[in-house]
Parts: sequence; structure tokens; C-alpha cells
Amino acid sequence: MGNPITAAMVQALREKTGAAMMDCKRALDEAAGDVTKAEDNLRIKGIKTAEKKSGRATSQGGIGHYLHHDGKKAVIVEVKCETDFVARNDKFKEFAKGLAMHVAAAKPRWTNKEEVPADAIEKEKAMIAAESAEEMAKKPEAARAKIIEGRLQKFYSQHCLLEQPWVLDDKKKVADVVKELIASIGENISVGRFARIEVGE
Amino acid sequence: MGNPITAAMVQALREKTGAAMMDCKRALDEAAGDVTKAEDNLRIKGIKTAEKKSGRATSQGGIGHYLHHDGKKAVIVEVKCETDFVARNDKFKEFAKGLAMHVAAAKPRWTNKEEVPADAIEKEKAMIAAESAEEMAKKPEAARAKIIEGRLQKFYSQHCLLEQPWVLDDKKKVADVVKELIASIGENISVGRFARIEVGE
Repeated sequence: MGNPITAAMVQALREKTGAAMMDCKRALDEAAGDVTKAEDNLRIKGIKTAEKKSGRATSQGGIGHYLHHDGKKAVIVEVKCETDFVARNDKFKEFAKGLAMHVAAAKPRWTNKEEVPADAIEKEKAMIAAESAEEMAKKPEAARAKIIEGRLQKFYSQHCLLEQPWVLDDKKKVADVVKELIASIGENISVGRFARIEVGE
Repeated sequence: MGNPITAAMVQALREKTGAAMMDCKRALDEAAGDVTKAEDNLRIKGIKTAEKKSGRATSQGGIGHYLHHDGKKAVIVEVKCETDFVARNDKFKEFAKGLAMHVAAAKPRWTNKEEVPADAIEKEKAMIAAESAEEMAKKPEAARAKIIEGRLQKFYSQHCLLEQPWVLDDKKKVADVVKELIASIGENISVGRFARIEVGE
């Protein structure tokens, strides 16, 4: 027999995870009032539905900001979510803050691959071809296309925010961290615009 | 007979005005050690030379930043100067901070007139012509050109940061405030890039 589920427990779990009221209630029911287990259940359920949620509209959100101690480098970045409730969640705000620090250090040029202008891609392809002309000459056509594709992915992972290795854990991409946050919080989250200004750059 | 000029007085005046060491020394000499008078002298001299200074290179500077209390609106703006000494001056930092607040409220689209793309100007001219077709028809050619020029100036004063009325005193343009700061500090100061992000805009 578990603990009785109180409204305070549901509210506490909601505050902690940012998940919907009914989901918190259900997770606590299923865990027979074990709060830790309920949180795990929410997380597992969240990962499964994160992909589904990623199509939902994000019209709320907050701004992550970072100002370097010398006052000469600053970043603002827009992180979007579905409800203002989540925008005020600590996990959400922590991510926004971390993301601003990431942008300060990693200097992305675009948010995602889709934003890279066609002429930048063409220029990069020409550079790849020029740099690896000798290597390319020895390979069959199919292998060449694969090499170019691999090098383009590297270009994206250098310059697109969501494709960059996360500065706080470079085994993950920023996109992975966003996906984990969606799983944990249980509503769609997306990265919007960002700006990075460094004096004299 | 005035007070003897000490190194501490020169340094204090330099800290206060950001003016060059030799200029502070000369101003104090001329004011016979009267610090207030010396400051006035520096200011008068500064206004005279501000125009001359505005051509000088600004490779140093700082970032003014503003974050709205709800965390949903943020601004960063680059203010440039000639030396790092001035970038750390309080007047300079105060202006950078005020300018970020100005951008948050006044929503400029460009820093100066020169940055407005040609197609935006053409579109605005077409709008002006359409809106005041009746008025225009009654005027001779020369008057029409004047009307369009006046309306374009209004467009610039709405959308170009340096042409906007300063939010803290709308009798001045932002460009005037910059000029006053150049006069007061005694080295060239310019407004660089800015970014304004508001969630859901």
C-alpha cells in the first residue's frame, strides 16, 4: 500500500518537473505515491513523447542572457515553450542561461542547418573540393559524395547552434540537450533567435 | 592666486571626465586649480573638438545590456570608443546602459540612416506617395520633393537608432547624446551593432 496522493504532492511534482497537472497525478498514482518513482515515470514517458511534442507551437518562452565579466562580450538567446508556466520553471531558466554561455563560447552563426544560406553551403563545398582534391581523385563517385556529406556535417556542427557539441558536455549536441529538456518538462521547447556581440569583432 | 595643481587632482579630473591626462592638467592650470571650472573648460573644449574626433577609429568599447523584469525582452548594444580607459569610465558605462534601455523601448531597426536598405526606402517613398496623393497633386514639383524628404526624415527618426528621440529626453536625438558624450569625455565614441529579442515577436 502506498501513500495517499495529496494535491500538495501533485503541485510539488509539477513545480519540479514542469509536467502537466494530470500527468503528475497519474504518475503519482502509478508509483503509489512514491515521488522519486513518479518523477522517473514522468521522465520515461516524456522521452517517448518528446518527438511527438516537438511539432507543437511554442509561443511562450524566455531570454537567456550572458555578459562576460570584462563587459566586452554579451549574448542573448530566445528559448521558447508552450506555456508561461514552463517559462518560469527553474530547469527551463537554467537551460536558457547555460545556452547563452554556450553561444558566448561556441560562436554559432546560425540556429539550425535549415538557416544556413545556400551560398554559404556552396562556398563550403568548393572549399572541401579544393582541400581534398588529391584524396577525391582516388575515390569513386559515390565515395566522394559521402566525403563531402561528412565534411558538411562537420561544418554544421561547427557553425549551427543546435548541431554544436554542448559546451557543458561535449558528448551531446545542443539538440540532444533540448530533447532531454522536452522529455523532462513534458512540453515542446525550441531555440529561437540569438545574438552575440563582442567588441571589436 | 589659485590652488597648487597636484597629481591627485589631475587623476581625479581624469577619472571624472575621462579626458586625456595632459588636457586635465592644462584645464586645471587654466582654472588656477578650480576643479569645477576646469571641468567646464574641458567640456567647452570638448564640444569644439567633438566634430573633429568623430572621425577617429573606435576599436575599444563595451556592451550595454538590458533585461526586462519578466525575462521576455532583452537588448545588447555595442558602444565603441578609442581606449579601454574610457570603456571603463562611469559616464561611458551609464550611457551604454541607458542606450540598451532606449533600444528596448524604442525598437529601432537600424543603427543609422546609411544602413537602411534601398528597397526599404523605395517602399517608404511609395507609401508616402500613396498616402498623400491628393495633397501632392496640388503642389509644384519642388514642394513635392520637399514633402517626401520631410516624411523620409520622420521614417528615419522612427526606425534608426541614432535619429530616434532619446527616451530619457525626447528633445535630443540619440546622435546628439553621443556628441555630448564625445565632448564630455574627449575621445570619439560611436554606436555599433545592437540586438533586441522579445519572446513571441
